[in-house]
Amino acid sequence: MSAASHFADRLGEAVCRRGNPVLVGLDPRWDCLPLSFRQRHGTPSHMEIAAAYRAFCEGVIDVVAPLVPCVKPQAAFFEDSGPEGMRALAYVIAYARQRGLLVILDGKRNDIGSTAAAYASAYLGADSPWGADALTVSPYLGDDSLSPFVSVAQERGAGVFVLVKTSNPGGGLFQDLDVGGLTLYRRVAAFVEQLAGSTLGTCGYGAVGAVAGATYPAQLSELRAAMPHTWFLVPGVGAQGATARDVAGAFDPAGLGAVVNSSRGIIFAHSRKEFKDRFSDRDWQRAVEAATHQLIEELRGETPAGRLHAAS
Amino acid sequence: MSAASHFADRLGEAVCRRGNPVLVGLDPRWDCLPLSFRQRHGTPSHMEIAAAYRAFCEGVIDVVAPLVPCVKPQAAFFEDSGPEGMRALAYVIAYARQRGLLVILDGKRNDIGSTAAAYASAYLGADSPWGADALTVSPYLGDDSLSPFVSVAQERGAGVFVLVKTSNPGGGLFQDLDVGGLTLYRRVAAFVEQLAGSTLGTCGYGAVGAVAGATYPAQLSELRAAMPHTWFLVPGVGAQGATARDVAGAFDPAGLGAVVNSSRGIIFAHSRKEFKDRFSDRDWQRAVEAATHQLIEELRGETPAGRLHAAS
Repeated sequence: MSAASHFADRLGEAVCRRGNPVLVGLDPRWDCLPLSFRQRHGTPSHMEIAAAYRAFCEGVIDVVAPLVPCVKPQAAFFEDSGPEGMRALAYVIAYARQRGLLVILDGKRNDIGSTAAAYASAYLGADSPWGADALTVSPYLGDDSLSPFVSVAQERGAGVFVLVKTSNPGGGLFQDLDVGGLTLYRRVAAFVEQLAGSTLGTCGYGAVGAVAGATYPAQLSELRAAMPHTWFLVPGVGAQGATARDVAGAFDPAGLGAVVNSSRGIIFAHSRKEFKDRFSDRDWQRAVEAATHQLIEELRGETPAGRLHAAS
Repeated sequence: MSAASHFADRLGEAVCRRGNPVLVGLDPRWDCLPLSFRQRHGTPSHMEIAAAYRAFCEGVIDVVAPLVPCVKPQAAFFEDSGPEGMRALAYVIAYARQRGLLVILDGKRNDIGSTAAAYASAYLGADSPWGADALTVSPYLGDDSLSPFVSVAQERGAGVFVLVKTSNPGGGLFQDLDVGGLTLYRRVAAFVEQLAGSTLGTCGYGAVGAVAGATYPAQLSELRAAMPHTWFLVPGVGAQGATARDVAGAFDPAGLGAVVNSSRGIIFAHSRKEFKDRFSDRDWQRAVEAATHQLIEELRGETPAGRLHAAS
């Protein structure tokens, strides 16, 4: 296997190649789609919704593939359209990879050992029918629930992102509990960093990453210091209220170590006030392009990711 | 809405009607299927695997539908066969419900608020393309990630089972951490009990239940005392090593309040030593029937669930 087959290295290379760390979230929501995808009478069937999601995500990918290193389809929205939605999800993953994007599937899966192995095989394995590059997973079930994902990731050059500090307001209910002087999320972080350290690529980061929300900037910096070998997937910028400046602490001094997710702020940019006046609903792809450039520039201006650009 | 449209009431009625609390897990694994489902040359395609899972689960349902109140399809194994597997999952859920079984889908889903709402809509909503009666969910993301499931469950007479104390050996890594004198799982339990208390049916139990593993019998009893309004989904009997006696503490004095899951021990009974001699591979359904009766009898003999039988 070449060095580049390690997920952390592939991610680092993709980020350097594009000169930015933007992770575009593919979260199709029927009510937010440009009107051209919704022109029909009456309530759409699951099949119609799934077809619209597929076409819409294809259109987003066409715009962002030359601009960003990676995309993150959100499984929930595809699952909401049933088996047809899942077929659309498989198509979207394959299409994005074909267009040269790394695909981090946001499924937040997990289960006990042998069932976790089935999830790992499903999404990251050699015969995976989905073929994602990485998967988000939940830590509550403990170490033996995470190890099947880590094994498959190592075998296959795939990645795993474990929830550590999530971006939602209620995330703290359990994550912020004090456990012997440290918060629970710091305990999870320590375990994830250990997994990252045991799965290092040549770039110094491991195949196991962490989800850490942009909506908690101080904690992001704290986690960056505590997790020097861990790639961060940072959600929360845009619709959830965090800014580019809020994610500055997630990066290492070279501008690596974090990918910054924006979903609605990019894919539904056509309905954002600032773009609505510039682009008609029909020009939704130009709005996606403008919003992507905007986030790239903000991250370059406000975070160490600016150094990627200078180097690229 | 009639009283029976509340999930906790529907579950209680189904348990009383059958006189036992057995929850048969539908966890199809290719290598464990009876040979008749695997007769082909070379490596099976995802489509062939999905078709075998569908036919096998249909065969299991035909046997157990007259015997037990509910089944629990494990999403992971269906996801491992891709979109075709998901189509099989949708079929299996519909078939089980058509045969009068309650269906608890084991997906351990969750995400932040608006994405959690998509999962809730997907699996439990009015237009759900899957149509499960209940779903297992993970608590790590906190209160605002659980509330969309609770809302949909209340609107739709559906149920939610939140992971509290899982059955795997590594579950304690985070769940057993001491949080101000209580374990983390007890903190999660307190929150779940509060949700259960706010979603009560006429039976005295709520629409929000808890997953609590049979492999930790002392903790099961402790949780039963701490969670008087919470239905328990108890995995871990059989292949994971727990016995009927281990789950005695999960029940209330009337024999209600818990459903006891066995997956491999029932559906792959044809390869269990004790049944292998009595039934040929071709008679796998008779092995399923015998294993189901065996667990029913053990639970009647060793737990308060015996009182259901006397009453039914």
